[in-house]
Amino acid sequence: MTSDDNVQVSVLGLGAMGSALAGALVRAGHPTTVWNRSPGKADDLVARGARLAATAGDAVRGGRLVIACLLDHASVREVLDPLAGELAGRALINVTTTRPAQAREMAAWAAQAGVAYLDGGIMAVPDMIGRPGASILYSGSAEVFDQHRPLLDLWGGGTYFGDDAGLASLYDLALLSGMYVMFAGFMHGAAMVAPAGVTAREFAAMAAPFLTAMTDGFQEYAAVIDGGDYTVEGQQSLEFSDLGDLLAASSDQGVSTEVVAMVQRLIQRQIDAGHGKEGFARIFESIRRPG
Amino acid sequence: MTSDDNVQVSVLGLGAMGSALAGALVRAGHPTTVWNRSPGKADDLVARGARLAATAGDAVRGGRLVIACLLDHASVREVLDPLAGELAGRALINVTTTRPAQAREMAAWAAQAGVAYLDGGIMAVPDMIGRPGASILYSGSAEVFDQHRPLLDLWGGGTYFGDDAGLASLYDLALLSGMYVMFAGFMHGAAMVAPAGVTAREFAAMAAPFLTAMTDGFQEYAAVIDGGDYTVEGQQSLEFSDLGDLLAASSDQGVSTEVVAMVQRLIQRQIDAGHGKEGFARIFESIRRPG
Ligand SMILES: NC(=O)c1ccc[n+]([C@@H]2O[C@H](COP(=O)([O-])OP(=O)(O)OC[C@H]3O[C@@H](n4cnc5c(N)ncnc54)[C@H](OP(=O)(O)O)[C@@H]3O)[C@@H](O)[C@H]2O)c1
Ligand SMILES: NC(=O)c1ccc[n+]([C@@H]2O[C@H](COP(=O)([O-])OP(=O)(O)OC[C@H]3O[C@@H](n4cnc5c(N)ncnc54)[C@H](OP(=O)(O)O)[C@@H]3O)[C@@H](O)[C@H]2O)c1
Repeated sequence: MTSDDNVQVSVLGLGAMGSALAGALVRAGHPTTVWNRSPGKADDLVARGARLAATAGDAVRGGRLVIACLLDHASVREVLDPLAGELAGRALINVTTTRPAQAREMAAWAAQAGVAYLDGGIMAVPDMIGRPGASILYSGSAEVFDQHRPLLDLWGGGTYFGDDAGLASLYDLALLSGMYVMFAGFMHGAAMVAPAGVTAREFAAMAAPFLTAMTDGFQEYAAVIDGGDYTVEGQQSLEFSDLGDLLAASSDQGVSTEVVAMVQRLIQRQIDAGHGKEGFARIFESIRRPG
Repeated sequence: MTSDDNVQVSVLGLGAMGSALAGALVRAGHPTTVWNRSPGKADDLVARGARLAATAGDAVRGGRLVIACLLDHASVREVLDPLAGELAGRALINVTTTRPAQAREMAAWAAQAGVAYLDGGIMAVPDMIGRPGASILYSGSAEVFDQHRPLLDLWGGGTYFGDDAGLASLYDLALLSGMYVMFAGFMHGAAMVAPAGVTAREFAAMAAPFLTAMTDGFQEYAAVIDGGDYTVEGQQSLEFSDLGDLLAASSDQGVSTEVVAMVQRLIQRQIDAGHGKEGFARIFESIRRPG
C-alpha cells in the first residue's frame, strides 16, 4: 500500500515517537530516509526498507519533505540551524513538542531560509500512531498540510488550525494541561478511597466512565463562557459548588488537600469578588485573569 | 408500569433532586407520599398522583420505605432526630450528599433506633434521573439494597459497595473531586487558547474526545499503583513529565499558572525524594502521603 503522495521523506530523530512515525511511513511503502544522532536506533527501520543517512545533512538532502521529531526546541535548533541552506526549497514538518513562541520562532527562521514550514503537536503516545484515536494538530503552511495530507493521515487524524505556526502547539499544550490536571484529579480520588480498602483499579473502573460522562459538561460551560453572561439561569452556582465536604473528607482520609484546594481557590476568588450567585463556569475568569 | 416492589414510599425533601426522585416513582405508579419543609414544591407531584404529607412525621408514618433527599447532613439530623420513634422498623435511604463520617454517624443513629439504613450518593444531575447515564452509589444495609433494587433501578444504575455506610459517600466525594479537578483543567486549557481567538466551544470540541480517550490511562496507572512498583518498564517517567513548557506557555498567554502548578508540585515532590526515573503514577504517593 502506497499513499497517493509518494514524496521522498526524511525523518530526523528516532526516539520512541520518531521511530513510530517513520515506521508508519515505511509500512505504507513510502521512500523513507532516517537519521538519528546516536547509532543503533535505525536498525529495525532499515531492515524494513528505510534508508539510513549518515548525517542530518545527508538526510535533508535525501528528502523533499523533512520531518523533525527531536527532544525539544533546543535540539531542533541545534540540528537544523547549520542546515538552512540544504533545507531551502523543501518542506519541513516539525512535530517536536515546543511552546507556541518557539514554533513561531521556527516559522520565522524557515521563512528566512525559504523553507515551507508546518508545525505539529502529537496528541498520542507512540503505540497509537497509525491507529484509531491518534490525533495530530497542525498549523503553519496550509500548502504543506494540504499537499501531504495523505501522508499525514498515515499517522492519525490531522486537524489544521491556521497559518499561525504557534496555534497547534498552543492547542497541544492546552489539551495536555487538561490531561495532566485530570490525571491529578483521578489520583486524588484513588488516594481518598484507598484507606477504605478500595483498589486503584476498582476506582478507575468507576472514574473512567463517570469522568467521560462529565465531559458533556464542557460544551455547556463553554457556551456560558463564550456568551460572556455567567448569570444565565439553570447553572450550578459558585456558592453551591462549595468544595468544603471534599476537602474535609480528604483530610479525614489522611490525604493531601492541595489538588482540590486548587479548585476551591478558583471558586473562592469569584465569590470574594461578589459573583457567588453566578455559574460555576465563572472559575474561567479566575484563570484568565490571575488574582 | 408498576415496579415489582410495590412498597409505600415517602420522599422527604422536594428540592431539584428530591423532586426528580419522587417524580420517577410516581411515573412508575408507586404509591408515593411526599413532604417538603416549605410549601408549593409538591404541587406538580400531587397533580400526578403523589400524596402530600402535612408534616415530616406524617410522611414517615405513610411509608415503609423513607427516602431523605435534603440539603445536607445538618438538615437530615434536624428533620429525622425527632422522628426516631416513628422510623423504628422502617427502612431509610438517605441520598443527601454527606461526608463518609456523617453517613456512618447516621448508620449508628439508625441502628440505635431500629431503622434499616442505606446511604446513597447520586452521581447525576436531576435531569438525568431515570435516564441512561445516571449512576447511584449505595452502601450500608444489604437487605435494603436487595429488597428495593427494582425501585432503585427506576432512578438509575445502582452500585452497592458493602455494609460500611460511609463507602458510597466516600466514592461519591472521590469521584466528584475528580470531576471538579477535571473541570478546572478544561477551563485552564480554554483560558490558554482564548487569547489566540479560539472560542471555549471550539476548545471543548477538541478537549471532550481527547480527555475521554485519555481516561484509558486510568487503568494503566491503577495497575502500577496497585502493584506498588513504580519502576516497571514502559512508563512515562516523572522527569519526562516536566510541566515547564505548560507553565511557561500559560504565562506567555497571560493566564494563571496555579492549576498546572498544582500538578507540577506533586511531580516535583517525588523527584526531590529521588524518584525522578520512576513512573508518573507515583504522584499518587504525593497525594496519599502529604509532603
Ligand atoms: N513519546 C510520547 O509519548 C510523545 C507524545 C507526544 C509528543 N511527543 C514529542 O515527540 C518528541 C520526541 O519524543 P520521543 O518520545 O521520541 O523522545 P525520546 O524517545 O526521548 O527521543 C528523543 C530524540 O531526540 C534526539 N535528540 C535529543 N537531543 C538531541 C540533540 N541535541 N541533537 C540531536 N538529536 C537529539 C534523541 O537522539 P539520541 O537517540 O541520540 O538521544 C532522540 O532521537 C518530543 O518533543 C516529545 O515531546 C512524544
Ligand atoms: N442537584 C444536583 O445536581 C445534585 C446532584 C447530586 C446530589 N445532590 C444532592 O441531593 C441533595 C438535594 O439537592 P437538591 O439539588 O435537591 O437541593 P435543593 O434544590 O437546594 O433542595 C434542598 C432541599 O433541602 C431542604 N432543606 C434544606 N434545609 C432544610 C432543613 N433544615 N429542614 C428541612 N428541609 C431542608 C429544602 O427545603 P426547602 O424547599 O424548604 O428549602 C429542599 O427541599 C443535596 O445533598 C445534594 O448535594 C444534588
